[in-house]
Amino acid sequence: MSFNPNLKIGVLGGGQLGRMMIQSAIDFNLDIHVIDPDENAPCKNIGTTFQKGSLTDYDTVYAFGKDKELITIEIENVNTKALKQLEAEGKKVYPQPAIIELIQNKLHQKEFYKANGIPTADFTVVNNREDVAKNEASLPFVNKLATGGYDGRGVQVIRKADDLSKAFDAPGFIEDLVDFDKEISVIVARNEKGDIQTFPTVEMVFHPEKNLVEYLFSPAEIDSKVEDEAQALAKDLIQKLEMVGLLAIEMFLTKEGTLLVNEIAPRTHNSGHQSIEGNVTSQFEQHLRAILNWPLGNTENVSPSAMLNVLGEDGYTGEAKYEGMDEVLATSGVHVHLYGKKLTKPFRKMGHITITDTDKERLREKVNFVKAQLKVKA
Amino acid sequence: MSFNPNLKIGVLGGGQLGRMMIQSAIDFNLDIHVIDPDENAPCKNIGTTFQKGSLTDYDTVYAFGKDKELITIEIENVNTKALKQLEAEGKKVYPQPAIIELIQNKLHQKEFYKANGIPTADFTVVNNREDVAKNEASLPFVNKLATGGYDGRGVQVIRKADDLSKAFDAPGFIEDLVDFDKEISVIVARNEKGDIQTFPTVEMVFHPEKNLVEYLFSPAEIDSKVEDEAQALAKDLIQKLEMVGLLAIEMFLTKEGTLLVNEIAPRTHNSGHQSIEGNVTSQFEQHLRAILNWPLGNTENVSPSAMLNVLGEDGYTGEAKYEGMDEVLATSGVHVHLYGKKLTKPFRKMGHITITDTDKERLREKVNFVKAQLKVKA
Repeated sequence: MSFNPNLKIGVLGGGQLGRMMIQSAIDFNLDIHVIDPDENAPCKNIGTTFQKGSLTDYDTVYAFGKDKELITIEIENVNTKALKQLEAEGKKVYPQPAIIELIQNKLHQKEFYKANGIPTADFTVVNNREDVAKNEASLPFVNKLATGGYDGRGVQVIRKADDLSKAFDAPGFIEDLVDFDKEISVIVARNEKGDIQTFPTVEMVFHPEKNLVEYLFSPAEIDSKVEDEAQALAKDLIQKLEMVGLLAIEMFLTKEGTLLVNEIAPRTHNSGHQSIEGNVTSQFEQHLRAILNWPLGNTENVSPSAMLNVLGEDGYTGEAKYEGMDEVLATSGVHVHLYGKKLTKPFRKMGHITITDTDKERLREKVNFVKAQLKVKA
Repeated sequence: MSFNPNLKIGVLGGGQLGRMMIQSAIDFNLDIHVIDPDENAPCKNIGTTFQKGSLTDYDTVYAFGKDKELITIEIENVNTKALKQLEAEGKKVYPQPAIIELIQNKLHQKEFYKANGIPTADFTVVNNREDVAKNEASLPFVNKLATGGYDGRGVQVIRKADDLSKAFDAPGFIEDLVDFDKEISVIVARNEKGDIQTFPTVEMVFHPEKNLVEYLFSPAEIDSKVEDEAQALAKDLIQKLEMVGLLAIEMFLTKEGTLLVNEIAPRTHNSGHQSIEGNVTSQFEQHLRAILNWPLGNTENVSPSAMLNVLGEDGYTGEAKYEGMDEVLATSGVHVHLYGKKLTKPFRKMGHITITDTDKERLREKVNFVKAQLKVKA
């Protein structure tokens, strides 16, 4: 389709990803309608219309899509049957419902990688807790549920025999615990015409002591051979899926220097937020370009950047207060993105901060400064 | 005031300047309420609330401001009496009503410059057409109305005696027609604490044959002495006004290398649109930072940039169609900003395009390409 701002676009999900997509869509006069089960969702006030409704209920999703011309998602936990029916009736639904369905099932994802020569950690299918226990000899491993796992749920590491009793008692798989050197991510877009464009690879920076992602750094500090491989892998994957839209691919770079696909998401992703300021085209604009079959945008880095999630402090629930924000705002090259959530709770994603700086050392210092200053309390 | 996203902010005017300000305000969860006489104004769908109403009617403006804590403008043709009353009742009104009032009157502006040692073209007060005619010996000159001139209205060049009959028959002034080398602009912000921060000077590039601004280029290609003078002049002016908010200052650089202030606007301005992508902090975020008394943002250029207004083609009135947009979107570093106006008419500002490129020659080529491709028709 060529440039048509009058097209009625429906978005399933009204969270921060939808919010930042709408901020970008405003630049193109796009007519965006949002549905979300939370009546105070981040997209509430900024689209053409907002309606409260279930994303997993067939009738609700079908009715929502019926008067739209293009339907997209900002969360993959949606009713794909309804989307398939809308697709059958001639609506554009991107990403395609079959791909959302594939990605909803982590086991099907793994089987797809295996069948298509996409490198991923070795895995064994399990149907219940008893099956997991049979693999005691392979410990440690990761135990994943096939379905129902969102936002980090449905995934756990089983380290020793004592932990086998905590294994999920439901269909899924166990996979090798990868002893990785780095965790990296590539976001890739594909439009209807089949044009494909990747973003430069980014890197999750882990805390040296605690085993958690501290911040994201763009571009990744990896050698050019690995960069080329990661980029090629992302292109290969979206091509093999024949997907239209944006795909985020989280990969492990093993200590041996090989890449393994960990998780994928068929939408804009936390690992692409820094693209708003850090790249020529943001992931949100790129998603719109892909699903509208427009030419894809240039994704080059404008500047090195770092991205920090702003999480609700542990121990605080209630109306959010942003302690230390004045100090953060006084720091050069700090870009604040709050998600319009009135209430904070422990570890809730309340926003993110992108920091741009041509000097990487200064960038790291600013990350540490912002982390030390900014606290979301109630 | 420190970071407080729950503050109720009212904006007089719901045009493109308000729209881009809200796009930025979304990042800070700001609670923005807009009033505009046009029920289909560009801000219609994107703020917390939008109401239709006159900006020049005392009662309407007063009632709108009554339940807000901070009031700002995106157009200066507003009822300042109501704003003064709101200010007297303890509301924050930025820019201050007295400054809006001063700027509403072009003659008072000129008198302010004269009284405060701000360089500007020499002028003579006139009360009517007869007064203008008495100055025949000074031809050619510019004839400006004291009040009622917005968006280029109320200003005309009188070149020869034959044209004296077309002079405005109302109070105003005539001023020397400046034979300038360049027209440049500096945007400067000042918060309540008195912190002042300028944006790097930008340059209006005139068409070599037609006498009109073709596009804007940032940063201006001027020598560092002129740059320093322009920056100092902007700081001096906002300081002398004791203004809180954002002030755009258009200046002539004469062929002798001196600077003369031409027009000023106490708000975000067309000559600052490229700051969204071209500078670390955009003029829209800077305006918010200034009126909220937050620390002002870094304004350095991220990259050279050019800004083109997207105007309705002459001869077309009706629902806007954007011819050539696919070609424009396929050009690297082109950032489209449409203003949400359904209807086009000749020369209506429908949007703008910012182009970023590290290579200035390529930037100029892209400007010409976009100009040639993009046509707003009906």
